[in-house]
Amino acid sequence: MIEITSASEAQAFINGNDTFLFDCDGVIWLGYQTPIPGSVEALQYLHSLGKRVIFVSNNSLHSRRDFVDIFHSFGLTHVSIDDIFTSTSAAAQYITHISPIHNNIFVLGGPGIVEELELTNLRIFYINEDGTNYDARPEKVDAVIVGLDSKLSYDKLALANTYLRHVNDTSGAYEAEFITTNMDNILVMKDGSLPGTGSISSFLIYSSGRIPTIIGKPSIKLLDCITEKLHIDPKRTCMVGDRLDTDIVFGHKGGINTLLVFSGYSTRKELSETPTDKRPTFACQSIGDLVKFIAQ
Amino acid sequence: MIEITSASEAQAFINGNDTFLFDCDGVIWLGYQTPIPGSVEALQYLHSLGKRVIFVSNNSLHSRRDFVDIFHSFGLTHVSIDDIFTSTSAAAQYITHISPIHNNIFVLGGPGIVEELELTNLRIFYINEDGTNYDARPEKVDAVIVGLDSKLSYDKLALANTYLRHVNDTSGAYEAEFITTNMDNILVMKDGSLPGTGSISSFLIYSSGRIPTIIGKPSIKLLDCITEKLHIDPKRTCMVGDRLDTDIVFGHKGGINTLLVFSGYSTRKELSETPTDKRPTFACQSIGDLVKFIAQ
Repeated sequence: MIEITSASEAQAFINGNDTFLFDCDGVIWLGYQTPIPGSVEALQYLHSLGKRVIFVSNNSLHSRRDFVDIFHSFGLTHVSIDDIFTSTSAAAQYITHISPIHNNIFVLGGPGIVEELELTNLRIFYINEDGTNYDARPEKVDAVIVGLDSKLSYDKLALANTYLRHVNDTSGAYEAEFITTNMDNILVMKDGSLPGTGSISSFLIYSSGRIPTIIGKPSIKLLDCITEKLHIDPKRTCMVGDRLDTDIVFGHKGGINTLLVFSGYSTRKELSETPTDKRPTFACQSIGDLVKFIAQ
Repeated sequence: MIEITSASEAQAFINGNDTFLFDCDGVIWLGYQTPIPGSVEALQYLHSLGKRVIFVSNNSLHSRRDFVDIFHSFGLTHVSIDDIFTSTSAAAQYITHISPIHNNIFVLGGPGIVEELELTNLRIFYINEDGTNYDARPEKVDAVIVGLDSKLSYDKLALANTYLRHVNDTSGAYEAEFITTNMDNILVMKDGSLPGTGSISSFLIYSSGRIPTIIGKPSIKLLDCITEKLHIDPKRTCMVGDRLDTDIVFGHKGGINTLLVFSGYSTRKELSETPTDKRPTFACQSIGDLVKFIAQ
């Protein structure tokens, strides 16, 4: 592992890769409102060099369009919806491509995941933000898909649990597939943390006794979605993230380079306790360092 | 294991015990409104014989006073608050007796648990049913106690998670003890099931990385609370329940007799797959059988 602490190391890192897969929470921003110092400059610098910059997020609260709006508000006006892959958009891709028979979906999640799923041909059902729509629930569904839901309620969880436990009288098999956008335990915010999608899924795993299909990092399903749409040379591609357990594991599984930053979830202590073969290829304090060292 | 299928077996079972610890959900009722057929008659019969009948429930939605009201509505007017031990009342007893320094408690739960905790000298804080009171939250608490909450929301879970993750700057230890009334995955209802307290705790275990102290069955802490208040001869005491994983394990741990009924959670199939040493002393379809066979 190389810790980037000089201009030459930063330069070598940038020259060695053509495509950069950037995690967002903890790398570019903490809590969407304000970017982490230097992150916007670093992304602009890579863009000016003609590098391909892709955003790969487990965030399931927002749609890709929401992500575009955030990037534009930071002045990164070149970012388009095609540059963004989220566990939510990948979940939509997964359901329509891999399980085309699933067409009646219960969504436990916020407006972002609903928006992504409405771009597909699936028939989706969800409880409105104010808790209404509950009475319109179908008796059974083909899949339950879980994303982050800041309006989570006991009624929604109870309904998801009922669907997940429902067994077909004839075949004896569960009727609904169980899909979770990701298993992140928390979301690191500017002033603390919020429970992540994985915590919601843990509730349902325990209540239903079911094991979900995980779409987001470190599952390789998210990389499958990217490589289905983009040509990537693994040797010249780097995953940049703040979590050893999701971003770095994901990069390793995909056989690509990895850069760990300390501006989010994982700490230097956690890295030092990680076995050598599980460590990232590179590390630095934040992506702002890349520009900072080169400008010095 | 003896399956009770005749008057003589029912008689031997009743003669062999002086004290009966009855689980409620799945044994006496399914969903509080209506008793399971024959259960009221069985309880009345035991009472008429002068047997001691105690109710031991993991239910953390209701206070003991709520339980008394339900029993009285069934015509079991002899039942008093002192006959009832719930994981909620035991949690209150646990906090005040075993951890007397804990005096600022965040309650994630419904009115029943709040009512039990208000009988103690603890300073408790909770979010009202309509979600208000959130702004009055203390910066830190000494304990987070989790019970079943039909008004569960993301905000409540996020607050509990924040308290649980809070580390003392000086000692480096977690500031809040993590207590759960029980780890039941679901509550069996008349027409399906609802997620149990254990599912809520699973969310927080995953989001916080903390392991809670469990009060309810099969934890022996609930039996400690009973034996602290009542003299019990283990050899002549029987735990009657519908769950192998909570009631029967609890009885075995306490060294008392056990009776499994099939009117609730566990099935005959589950029993047949259980190793011999984990099986109950007795089994029958429902507690109504005890009276039915004797009356025949």
